[in-house]
Amino acid sequence: MSTPAGNRSAPPPTERRSAAKAVPAGALLKSLPLFKALDEASLGRLAAATHRRVLARGERVFSRGDDPEGMYVVVYGQVRLLGRARGGGERLAGVVDAGHSFGEPIMFLERPALVDAEAATDALVLQLPKEAVFAEIERNPRFARRLIAGLSSRLEALVQQQERQDRGGGQARVVDYLLRQGGSTAGVPFTLPAAKAAVAAHLRLTPEHFSRLLHELAAEELLRIDGRRITLLQPLRLAALRH
Amino acid sequence: MSTPAGNRSAPPPTERRSAAKAVPAGALLKSLPLFKALDEASLGRLAAATHRRVLARGERVFSRGDDPEGMYVVVYGQVRLLGRARGGGERLAGVVDAGHSFGEPIMFLERPALVDAEAATDALVLQLPKEAVFAEIERNPRFARRLIAGLSSRLEALVQQQERQDRGGGQARVVDYLLRQGGSTAGVPFTLPAAKAAVAAHLRLTPEHFSRLLHELAAEELLRIDGRRITLLQPLRLAALRH
Repeated sequence: MSTPAGNRSAPPPTERRSAAKAVPAGALLKSLPLFKALDEASLGRLAAATHRRVLARGERVFSRGDDPEGMYVVVYGQVRLLGRARGGGERLAGVVDAGHSFGEPIMFLERPALVDAEAATDALVLQLPKEAVFAEIERNPRFARRLIAGLSSRLEALVQQQERQDRGGGQARVVDYLLRQGGSTAGVPFTLPAAKAAVAAHLRLTPEHFSRLLHELAAEELLRIDGRRITLLQPLRLAALRH
Repeated sequence: MSTPAGNRSAPPPTERRSAAKAVPAGALLKSLPLFKALDEASLGRLAAATHRRVLARGERVFSRGDDPEGMYVVVYGQVRLLGRARGGGERLAGVVDAGHSFGEPIMFLERPALVDAEAATDALVLQLPKEAVFAEIERNPRFARRLIAGLSSRLEALVQQQERQDRGGGQARVVDYLLRQGGSTAGVPFTLPAAKAAVAAHLRLTPEHFSRLLHELAAEELLRIDGRRITLLQPLRLAALRH
């Protein structure tokens, strides 16, 4: 089982689903960065406790207020984390790509979830129950260090994201976001990981302002919009608008 | 040595300085949440490796771009973390209170610092070299769990902060920030942990807008401003402006 970095080069959903069902949990774990340093015995113990969840786009992993009693790792697909926006709508708080984990803070702090976690695409998610994770930390300092490193990168990413969002006006924020989502390849469409209003809130824009900026970029033939599907036509010219 | 939660009830700087010099490192560590679960042997090993830094307000712990080779714990005082704001100024990225740690992500990810860390008040900071921290994780899963829990709370706090800052307009953000800084006690002055422009950037406001909002609140006799010193006069009425 490979772990695709995005959802563009992945095999079609039905194929992935049956492949994922066939692969033993130990092999899935082994392919993920968090578990790479583990020996066979540790992998075996964790695999035995792992639950796999094959999710269709839009399906919930947990909801705000739940106590999820474990942590999660994305094998393929993307999971979006949705908080509350101004006025009560949804706000994209983060996107978890294949190979990455989520839910550790809730598990460690024993507090209810602050966000809804739901599949942004068809996805395979592994759930590792709290007891198994805690037992493995006791046994295996390497696993503890991987967890610490994972949380550290998320903290850094959040700080960097805040800084990026402070800089530049609305257009720069939209362009920066689209380039990070869609990469710099012209003509390859990608899907926004959440509803436009939620992405707008993430970018600290009103839905109307976000929509207007997107349509201005489309009018200049820098990109094409088809609902939540976006195709960057001239990524280099877009990149020049970031500053 | 007690660990005051803020800088208001702490003894005067000179007294604290000499007290801090007299207290053995092991006793200082033991008073901090991160190290509470440790046995005497672990505390002794960490204490032997600990460097203490007595800082005057404004003194740097490390600068953006440095490789600090260790993590830090604040014993008393506050440390501010400053990123870059739009237009090249400073932006308050966080404040580390007594009892809390910082610098772990840099240490674990082995990347240069993204922020300047400097004393916002007179402060005592302990530096724990990387080797000592890594060795203790190997030996002591409880220490690893405390580190993971600490990083988890910071992640949660950042997510909550982003959500808070999305909600409400500029005035609500300023009021929310002041109440969190100054508590709900009327008449007790506190000092903004960074320059007004950096706090404004943290609140996603221009310095002018921030200044205007402060002066509007002062004109309504809800607070008093004296440079960076703020006194909340009517915290309950202020709290009503948060929504």
